[in-house]
Amino acid sequence: MRRFSHAIRVRFAETDTFGIVYYPNIFTYFDLAVEALLDASPYDYVGNLRRTGAGFPALECGGAFSSPIFAGDDIVVETDIEDVRTRAFRVRHRIVRGEDVLASGYEVRIYARKPPGSETIEGLPLPDELRAWLTEDNV
Amino acid sequence: MRRFSHAIRVRFAETDTFGIVYYPNIFTYFDLAVEALLDASPYDYVGNLRRTGAGFPALECGGAFSSPIFAGDDIVVETDIEDVRTRAFRVRHRIVRGEDVLASGYEVRIYARKPPGSETIEGLPLPDELRAWLTEDNV
Amino acid sequence: MRRFSHAIRVRFAETDTFGIVYYPNIFTYFDLAVEALLDASPYDYVGNLRRTGAGFPALECGGAFSSPIFAGDDIVVETDIEDVRTRAFRVRHRIVRGEDVLASGYEVRIYARKPPGSETIEGLPLPDELRAWLTEDNV
Amino acid sequence: MRRFSHAIRVRFAETDTFGIVYYPNIFTYFDLAVEALLDASPYDYVGNLRRTGAGFPALECGGAFSSPIFAGDDIVVETDIEDVRTRAFRVRHRIVRGEDVLASGYEVRIYARKPPGSETIEGLPLPDELRAWLTEDNV
Repeated sequence: MRRFSHAIRVRFAETDTFGIVYYPNIFTYFDLAVEALLDASPYDYVGNLRRTGAGFPALECGGAFSSPIFAGDDIVVETDIEDVRTRAFRVRHRIVRGEDVLASGYEVRIYARKPPGSETIEGLPLPDELRAWLTEDNV
Repeated sequence: MRRFSHAIRVRFAETDTFGIVYYPNIFTYFDLAVEALLDASPYDYVGNLRRTGAGFPALECGGAFSSPIFAGDDIVVETDIEDVRTRAFRVRHRIVRGEDVLASGYEVRIYARKPPGSETIEGLPLPDELRAWLTEDNV
Repeated sequence: MRRFSHAIRVRFAETDTFGIVYYPNIFTYFDLAVEALLDASPYDYVGNLRRTGAGFPALECGGAFSSPIFAGDDIVVETDIEDVRTRAFRVRHRIVRGEDVLASGYEVRIYARKPPGSETIEGLPLPDELRAWLTEDNV
Repeated sequence: MRRFSHAIRVRFAETDTFGIVYYPNIFTYFDLAVEALLDASPYDYVGNLRRTGAGFPALECGGAFSSPIFAGDDIVVETDIEDVRTRAFRVRHRIVRGEDVLASGYEVRIYARKPPGSETIEGLPLPDELRAWLTEDNV
């Protein structure tokens, strides 16, 4: 299965009164890692999002936070594809700063489209080329 | 011209390392005041947003921040309609906590729609009933 | 154990290109419910946050999202205290719109303080009055 | 006076139901440009923020938005220092995508510190080395 790394510089904007990253923003970091993963894949993520409204909403997720993260920190999200199904995939993330693991978590993402004017999201089978790429061993 | 007031309880989520509201969120407060204003008007803001994708994007805005705003503060955004044109309206906002003015600013909003799959926003004439309501003296 | 309800009107600000609430903001809703819970308790949440920098950071959390949430939705976060320990408590949340359950999840919160200039968060025992209030049956 | 450029990839997280960047986030982009400017300067922005709580809050700002910005866009914030005073500086920003100017604006920033437990922000004279660096012609 594929492994992926995405570097992020923590923004002042993402911190709170505690002087640390506000915890829902950890999931934004997970999302940025998935966006970068998709950008690196053969699937045209940005183009499809704009032309057809297709994307990869989260079905479920979880996180555990072991150390505070500060404005200006250079962190890396290390992502492992754990499972790829017909209509969904599951990833595991670790956020590290140098040797330190600061947070970890997982997400289940589906492939879906919200037709304009509709209030329901319709699930779609993952594109073959994307499924093949996600399941490839690259390490 | 119409005057409008909208109460907001400041969220921990909206603060930063300084322990005060992160300044772009002041514009989110302005936006919440405009959303509440539209909800109170005869124009069906939420229904139109969902069914047709029509809304009121900002064309320009400005703000001045005189006092810090903290998590847990009960603030009020006082909004005055300043000008209503065929395709746009201008509002002035003041954010107060009790007697203290904490911030002030303005926004110019247009009425517009982004057709799905299109990359341009098309401006529309303001609905007559909304224009009439905005220009009404209510104080 | 205590049960608590907190009503939220979904902001346009919280949605994304899909036209639904961006999923990390679901955790912001969980956080708002915990803030409202603390505000309703005998513990002086806002006062302590300002005077001593003490608060309730999340140690871990999870969520599952069954239906999309839209701008303008009136939702309620229903929160059940599940477990109260010496230094932490665990809550379960359900987000409902009328009869529909839109999302569910949990959080483990600790009581902690980040001394100014320090990079570590020091855990503290939960205040007795708060622990008693959280464990009280109110339904 | 100094000129500075900062590249940003627009996040899905920053868009709204219109499928474009939610306008308060334009000010977050301005803030990121100022953070990057300070990081590039001889002043130790991140170190001081952590050790002493000193930073550069905005006193006022404004923006005008000429074209929508989309998830996945590669934009550049071009920043010009316009004025440097004893306790404040003024910057002008333009956000471009290739040849297109998408937004422009300005900010006045002060140098300040919020002592822990205090509710007031105390203004400070700009550090000499920072003032010298900001006023330097580099183009």
